[in-house]
Amino acid sequence: MNVRGNDPPKRPLVALTMGDIAGIGPEVIVRGWLDPRLHALARPVVIGDPGVLRRAIDLVAPDRAIRTQLITAPEAADPSAETIPCLSPASGRIDVAGVVPGTVDARAGRAAFAYLTTAIDLAREGRLDAITTLPLNKLALHQAGISHPGHTEILAERCGVADHAMMLYLETDSAGTRTDTRQQGSGLGVVHVTLHVALRRVFDLLSQESILSKIRLADQAMRPLTGGRPPRIAVTSLNPHAGEDGLFGDEEQKLIRPAVIAARREVLDATGPHPNDTLFYHALNGDYDAVVAMYHDQGHIALKTVGFQRAVNITLGLPIVRTSVAHGTAFDIAWKGQADASSLIAAVRVAARIVGGQRPNDR
Amino acid sequence: MNVRGNDPPKRPLVALTMGDIAGIGPEVIVRGWLDPRLHALARPVVIGDPGVLRRAIDLVAPDRAIRTQLITAPEAADPSAETIPCLSPASGRIDVAGVVPGTVDARAGRAAFAYLTTAIDLAREGRLDAITTLPLNKLALHQAGISHPGHTEILAERCGVADHAMMLYLETDSAGTRTDTRQQGSGLGVVHVTLHVALRRVFDLLSQESILSKIRLADQAMRPLTGGRPPRIAVTSLNPHAGEDGLFGDEEQKLIRPAVIAARREVLDATGPHPNDTLFYHALNGDYDAVVAMYHDQGHIALKTVGFQRAVNITLGLPIVRTSVAHGTAFDIAWKGQADASSLIAAVRVAARIVGGQRPNDR
Repeated sequence: MNVRGNDPPKRPLVALTMGDIAGIGPEVIVRGWLDPRLHALARPVVIGDPGVLRRAIDLVAPDRAIRTQLITAPEAADPSAETIPCLSPASGRIDVAGVVPGTVDARAGRAAFAYLTTAIDLAREGRLDAITTLPLNKLALHQAGISHPGHTEILAERCGVADHAMMLYLETDSAGTRTDTRQQGSGLGVVHVTLHVALRRVFDLLSQESILSKIRLADQAMRPLTGGRPPRIAVTSLNPHAGEDGLFGDEEQKLIRPAVIAARREVLDATGPHPNDTLFYHALNGDYDAVVAMYHDQGHIALKTVGFQRAVNITLGLPIVRTSVAHGTAFDIAWKGQADASSLIAAVRVAARIVGGQRPNDR
Repeated sequence: MNVRGNDPPKRPLVALTMGDIAGIGPEVIVRGWLDPRLHALARPVVIGDPGVLRRAIDLVAPDRAIRTQLITAPEAADPSAETIPCLSPASGRIDVAGVVPGTVDARAGRAAFAYLTTAIDLAREGRLDAITTLPLNKLALHQAGISHPGHTEILAERCGVADHAMMLYLETDSAGTRTDTRQQGSGLGVVHVTLHVALRRVFDLLSQESILSKIRLADQAMRPLTGGRPPRIAVTSLNPHAGEDGLFGDEEQKLIRPAVIAARREVLDATGPHPNDTLFYHALNGDYDAVVAMYHDQGHIALKTVGFQRAVNITLGLPIVRTSVAHGTAFDIAWKGQADASSLIAAVRVAARIVGGQRPNDR
């Protein structure tokens, strides 16, 4: 009998999809690979182009003896600080050798799509524990004849999911140095009731129902990260000073407070509406696990001002675990060796934590 | 001949108005008094009630031999770490001995009004260099028969000023340890185009003219703090992703960009509209001196999330220098000895810097 009760939890197999190779994705992967935390958190596997990966190693770590391991199945991966397993999509190699850094190229778009869909399929087959994605370029996708505007839509379609959402997430262990995921704070997740719409349209999209559904989603999404404890959810207000008792708008009284009351009737630990200017300070200091925000800039201003390099996106509602760096392709600095891997490390860490939280009996 | 070219600049005489004595104002003053930075920055003088001040000393610093110096003219003030000069308004003492901490009381409202108006009059006569105010309670003012809702309105009326504005300000020397005001960064000031109105009303109040006038005001306000260097002003957007080229709203193209172009024609160093989620990170890291924000929560979320205890208000458009702590009376923790003086120290520091910047030849 093999008693391993005191062993650390098994590290999950996490695919890093290379994204658009003209951007900073490949070098961020290599930069992250040099960080011991990555290996303590997960067994990472790159899904992308081995030649591009080699070039990124030569750029970022020319004096380190890092080799690539070409694999065709994730089960064969043997990742270590010195070895980067790279799985190239089976669906016909795309020759990306000629892609110029920092430029929009249909070949890079087609390749990025292939890396992502390969990862999705493997994750759905249970052959990967999670996917952490590096950024795509929307225009390159478009030029490759792919009509989806970005990751989320591709993920949703390929997983056959209609009801999904994005959570912006920031670790509140700001040093981010703990690799034992069981010892960490739950971080702060923000779900937005409205997202990529003009501010003027927000008023039409807010309703008691739309707010309540996002409170439920925030609760569900944070449960793997709070160790089963009911997530403490703060709901923002729409107007300054939470409307100052109706003086500056009445959405707090008409929509938000009723939604919070309805959530509490469902035994969710929701409070609000809170004044936005002080809420995020308290939330980031551990008073709440999640915030339900009324519109894009509320959550994004707070989390990116505090944790510009460390913010992470989590896609909710999928049958697989997917996290993403919160930055873009950064064509302006691509392939100059300047890119930072903090967001990648944070994205892998939260993926590992979600996987761990979903299998609480894992040793 | 007295050559003092290498002497430190003369410390300005700054009045600290006690505010509502049922709130945290008095104890914040004493807490601040214990901080050597206060005395390095300014010669502070309290305008308030000497009996209340004594009680606050006994609460906050019972084992320190701090005495109060009762004065009737600011010229008599001899402030030091051991001596708190306290000027009680000449216009008839208000007996506030019976005011219960943490409660709304008309006597406290009437007294707070007297402290403030006394300070304004002395500053206008040139007998004080600046005023830093502790918080008022609006309801107590109202119960005292004073119709002004707050500090700003009282200041504006008493100074005979119609066109004024509030700047939210955060020091970017985050440690806040430098007392030589000439060595500090310029900090970040945020002027809001719209402020205490429902979000729904913002759209009606934004115009090229209203945005341009706030860019001008931000430029003017920051000049004493940048040492004469033209302030670098970033203008926010209204919509997420700065409207994503018109996809999420057109105010960026129709109003904000034209206002920025008009400002540049006036040789102001203005840029934008910037995407809000990343702007404040860069601004707080020194890329800009000021931000012109479209609505209340943009600037307040960013500055209070990062510098909850340290944010400061500066009133623009007055003939006198006035700064204020950014917190309220905090009745819930008043007179429990828990209040923090970080905002007061920051407010005095910025007042001293403005005074210094307005008299550049001062030695």
